[in-house]
Amino acid sequence: MNFCSDNVTGVAPEIMAAIADANHGAAMGYGNDDITRRLEKRAAELFEADLVAFPVATGTASNSLALSVMTPSYGAIYCHELAHINVDECGGPELFSGGAKLIDLPGANGKLDAALILDELSKGALGNVHNAQPSVVSITQATECGTIYKPDEVREIADLAHRHGLKVHMDGTRFANAVASIGCKPAELSWRAGVDALSLGATKNGAMAAELVIFFDRALADRFGYMRKRGGHLFSKMRFVSAQLEAYFNNGLWLKHAGHANKMARRLADGIGNLPETQILNPVEANLFFVKMPESVLTGLESDGFRFYREGGPETIRLVTAFNTDPAQVDAFIASAARHATSIPRRAVRTSAA
Amino acid sequence: MNFCSDNVTGVAPEIMAAIADANHGAAMGYGNDDITRRLEKRAAELFEADLVAFPVATGTASNSLALSVMTPSYGAIYCHELAHINVDECGGPELFSGGAKLIDLPGANGKLDAALILDELSKGALGNVHNAQPSVVSITQATECGTIYKPDEVREIADLAHRHGLKVHMDGTRFANAVASIGCKPAELSWRAGVDALSLGATKNGAMAAELVIFFDRALADRFGYMRKRGGHLFSKMRFVSAQLEAYFNNGLWLKHAGHANKMARRLADGIGNLPETQILNPVEANLFFVKMPESVLTGLESDGFRFYREGGPETIRLVTAFNTDPAQVDAFIASAARHATSIPRRAVRTSAA
Amino acid sequence: MNFCSDNVTGVAPEIMAAIADANHGAAMGYGNDDITRRLEKRAAELFEADLVAFPVATGTASNSLALSVMTPSYGAIYCHELAHINVDECGGPELFSGGAKLIDLPGANGKLDAALILDELSKGALGNVHNAQPSVVSITQATECGTIYKPDEVREIADLAHRHGLKVHMDGTRFANAVASIGCKPAELSWRAGVDALSLGATKNGAMAAELVIFFDRALADRFGYMRKRGGHLFSKMRFVSAQLEAYFNNGLWLKHAGHANKMARRLADGIGNLPETQILNPVEANLFFVKMPESVLTGLESDGFRFYREGGPETIRLVTAFNTDPAQVDAFIASAARHATSIPRRAVRTSAA
Amino acid sequence: MNFCSDNVTGVAPEIMAAIADANHGAAMGYGNDDITRRLEKRAAELFEADLVAFPVATGTASNSLALSVMTPSYGAIYCHELAHINVDECGGPELFSGGAKLIDLPGANGKLDAALILDELSKGALGNVHNAQPSVVSITQATECGTIYKPDEVREIADLAHRHGLKVHMDGTRFANAVASIGCKPAELSWRAGVDALSLGATKNGAMAAELVIFFDRALADRFGYMRKRGGHLFSKMRFVSAQLEAYFNNGLWLKHAGHANKMARRLADGIGNLPETQILNPVEANLFFVKMPESVLTGLESDGFRFYREGGPETIRLVTAFNTDPAQVDAFIASAARHATSIPRRAVRTSAA
Repeated sequence: MNFCSDNVTGVAPEIMAAIADANHGAAMGYGNDDITRRLEKRAAELFEADLVAFPVATGTASNSLALSVMTPSYGAIYCHELAHINVDECGGPELFSGGAKLIDLPGANGKLDAALILDELSKGALGNVHNAQPSVVSITQATECGTIYKPDEVREIADLAHRHGLKVHMDGTRFANAVASIGCKPAELSWRAGVDALSLGATKNGAMAAELVIFFDRALADRFGYMRKRGGHLFSKMRFVSAQLEAYFNNGLWLKHAGHANKMARRLADGIGNLPETQILNPVEANLFFVKMPESVLTGLESDGFRFYREGGPETIRLVTAFNTDPAQVDAFIASAARHATSIPRRAVRTSAA
Repeated sequence: MNFCSDNVTGVAPEIMAAIADANHGAAMGYGNDDITRRLEKRAAELFEADLVAFPVATGTASNSLALSVMTPSYGAIYCHELAHINVDECGGPELFSGGAKLIDLPGANGKLDAALILDELSKGALGNVHNAQPSVVSITQATECGTIYKPDEVREIADLAHRHGLKVHMDGTRFANAVASIGCKPAELSWRAGVDALSLGATKNGAMAAELVIFFDRALADRFGYMRKRGGHLFSKMRFVSAQLEAYFNNGLWLKHAGHANKMARRLADGIGNLPETQILNPVEANLFFVKMPESVLTGLESDGFRFYREGGPETIRLVTAFNTDPAQVDAFIASAARHATSIPRRAVRTSAA
Repeated sequence: MNFCSDNVTGVAPEIMAAIADANHGAAMGYGNDDITRRLEKRAAELFEADLVAFPVATGTASNSLALSVMTPSYGAIYCHELAHINVDECGGPELFSGGAKLIDLPGANGKLDAALILDELSKGALGNVHNAQPSVVSITQATECGTIYKPDEVREIADLAHRHGLKVHMDGTRFANAVASIGCKPAELSWRAGVDALSLGATKNGAMAAELVIFFDRALADRFGYMRKRGGHLFSKMRFVSAQLEAYFNNGLWLKHAGHANKMARRLADGIGNLPETQILNPVEANLFFVKMPESVLTGLESDGFRFYREGGPETIRLVTAFNTDPAQVDAFIASAARHATSIPRRAVRTSAA
Repeated sequence: MNFCSDNVTGVAPEIMAAIADANHGAAMGYGNDDITRRLEKRAAELFEADLVAFPVATGTASNSLALSVMTPSYGAIYCHELAHINVDECGGPELFSGGAKLIDLPGANGKLDAALILDELSKGALGNVHNAQPSVVSITQATECGTIYKPDEVREIADLAHRHGLKVHMDGTRFANAVASIGCKPAELSWRAGVDALSLGATKNGAMAAELVIFFDRALADRFGYMRKRGGHLFSKMRFVSAQLEAYFNNGLWLKHAGHANKMARRLADGIGNLPETQILNPVEANLFFVKMPESVLTGLESDGFRFYREGGPETIRLVTAFNTDPAQVDAFIASAARHATSIPRRAVRTSAA
């Protein structure tokens, strides 16, 4: 009954089986194995692109290393103020880039506003030696607020970035949730919309520790292998990372997982959204959302054994569902919340923002 | 029949089982789980020390991150010229330390010579702003040549380092092999001999991807957590890394594994050491050694399907055994080598250097 | 007739004479000379403190190097969004700190708001490995808007910082202007108000290329010498940098210069503040201010040969006076502005914000 | 009577006059001034090349910044083990490059041996992710031993470097001494011999604090401006740095200075070379050399007021002459040495190595 994060979950059985299956005989290390080779081909098919792909094991590594080859050390990376790279990686992008500068921008529902990026780019920094040089726009898909950029929204930002000579990075920790939510092809939300590099997550969606850095702009990939090794992210027994990703893509597992997690979030939001004094704070488009509930309800939920992070403001929590969230647990959460809410005088019913 | 490295092997069954066992229910991420907490206690018992321990997943991460909290960015790290940190990590220690300088020294059989370190420390760099500041001595145990520092040898270097205000790091990728070879307690080869921080390996000895950074000097640990996170090496589903290490230590598995690998190396060296024109180049004390053999023998072995790295000079190869090396494969290697050696005119029989 | 910056000026005659005087005979390099030794004593007297002082030659070096010893690489530095370290040093602090994070905050008139800093510090980053660790508050004195923190304002911020374990840095590029404006002792605006390290400027106030990094918290100074050397900022013929600073302090030259520059800014603001459609945008407390004037006036001034930066918004310019600004030029500027303003229909007279 | 270094000297009168001359009226900062623009043209004429040139103020900045745009952070820089960048810059190249690796090689008389570089390049690092990537060869001209690479020697190394895709950097702190010694054109010792970037010194040859980073490979210059600013090496009152360099080049002052210094070194070496038990350790080709003399002579010289560094071995000192070394002081040194040598039993007369 843990709704803290999609990383409190374990490993999906299909992925655990793939790890066990990879454990036969010797295989050359550092990615010179058959599974890793197959994986890149598989990713190319899925994304319908002539891409270059590098497995790594954590989201911070995936984001920081991708960014490190997209910006010079004196570069600036535009991102949302809530972006994981900005607030939750303890300066990982700064470390791997050699001290690039993250310029964080506000934006409703965790989404970057193209107009604000344009404002920044119009300040005259480009080519001015006194300023960090605008180099990358990084967007999170799905966002840290559980919302999703539509393909057109990605394209608008990407076009703006490209017009000014910047590259586009997508933190796709929950990319599967975005694809499943929209029901589009992976290509439509990535390279066809202008994304140059995608940090595609699997760990939060059923893998043990596996992420895939994908370069649609192949030139960016030249330096990545060195940065990955230097960063300690080139695994000697790489086959066990690659096997997770291969299983992740097989038979649409990644989208099945993400679709389930999305559905559970929807079910949860629908179940609590109309409780008294309760306000869903963001559109519920993926597998997480923020909700404001009376303190007595929050305390009641906690005493009933439900876990979640208090985050985003007073009486506000983040609720996250996952690939293996049990509908019964969702329903139990709703029931608990409803029970604790009964004692609340009904002042105003706020509907979900979605 | 792959003798290239101990990382071409798979995962030991006990460790794979531990991974599977860890996959039950939700667990808080980033090391806030029961297995990780147990692991640190287990390590403290094994090493009979009030230590601080951090699981990571690769040897480069283990070494580079440990060093990053032992030296300022303007520091110098003394190491052997063949040290993994010097030649095989693509500048990992330089990256994480912010540009510290590795000063590499020669030394027979891959071992640092205390006299040469003293020479370096006597050059007047300490306190001189023009010079990188001597900060760490890093020794590899077992060495890259498959040799081992005895406790007294470690202590001599550590005492020298401490007298000059330097810290002592041990790259213990094959620390288990060293302990098994000597038959001492882990403490004797580490903190009791003056080691301040140990990068203890498991991946090459049966784990999937797990290493443990151990600080005997607890003050060094304060900054490590931030560096690990920033470096992308804090795993969200940490329990699966910790479970590997827990199983590694359980029932002496780590020493059983290492002992077997050592024994296989000894068997291999004994079997080929007396072949004509064959010279074992280093004492065989752990699970790897360098050997010079006639080109015709090397080619013959390769054509028989044996794999190994040509490394260390002309007609020279490195042979590595592992926790799961099959004695039959060792014997097959010996037989193949002997067969290909029969056509060689016997000029001189060189005995093993061991 | 150049009001672009106080760095478009030349060198004060007293300082040029000191440079020439220093050019007699041989002197040991790298600060091991008599002038440099005298300088530190002189600074200690002036600031009535047992300080450690390091001459450097540029403001970016002074700020970036000072910060580099005040924060770990995973640290966060709080500063105003307009701070020179944030927008005008091309990532210098990020480079020298090894990738620390600048967290910029808004604030009226270029001044940090203690309440906003407290908000940031209350977000829970301290001790949380996912977040850059709050390490330094950096304030600019006088600010980039030409305003001044009173001693009590500095102390409020410094006390807040110290209570949370942060250090306090002051970018004192125009520290002399602040001291001259308030008429206080240097100590009152620095260490007595809680400043741990001061980057004291001279270049913009009559020196050729000389700044002094002063540590009131002596422990911070230990690492500085190495960082300065490593950064290429340890001058071999240091006496010529130190001589500038010695002359700067002699006979109150620094405050005489700053007082003159402040007076010229006041004269300029008074002269144009009441022109039609003209709005002085900040209190005029030091030697620069922002002013909004009709485009026709700005174009007219430019065509009359006056130079200034268009900055801070539409129809907005920054005007900077200096130690050697000629009152006649100020009056000429006022006359030109008034002449070009005559054709403007007087809608509303806005008074200076000061 | 100070023979410690050519940086213990003051400033040449012509250069001091140029500094004073530059101090008229306002000039735009950061290199947007007439003198700086003229300087680049002047350098282009002198070197007969379409170069890009950036003034900086210290040798460490000149070397470290030049290297920072010639290597990726995961690059390797080959240099002599005595190179200033390797032992006397406290890790400056490591800082500015983001952690590149200096690989130092031995070589007689301070000169790199092309065969040893080839050995290194043949080890297979190129393209191997485990190894720092060979990126630059840096040679010092004149060397730290006071010897000189002939144009053909530079070319041999440069051709080797270029064939393997490496760039060639020249630490030309004493480039003037080399040109004056050989009597060639500057182009012959730089770009015509394959040098891609030259850190040209002036400070040790009569300037106050001025060095010129010259890129013959113009593509390398693109990133330099940002690195210089970020490093705190973009001077606001740049004209005073550029004025030094302009005067340095005017009327052949730089070569006149260097020629004098070289001549003084020759005179000194000739005068002491035949004293008993005295051995000049390197060919005397520029303005410094190492000499071994009996301890009693060294002590005698010191007691007579002569200053020099004991360096390079037992009873060994480094002697450096400069642009303004007085022949009378040289003769006084010789006389003092001869006087103190008289009491030494003449065992063997060793002639100068030159």
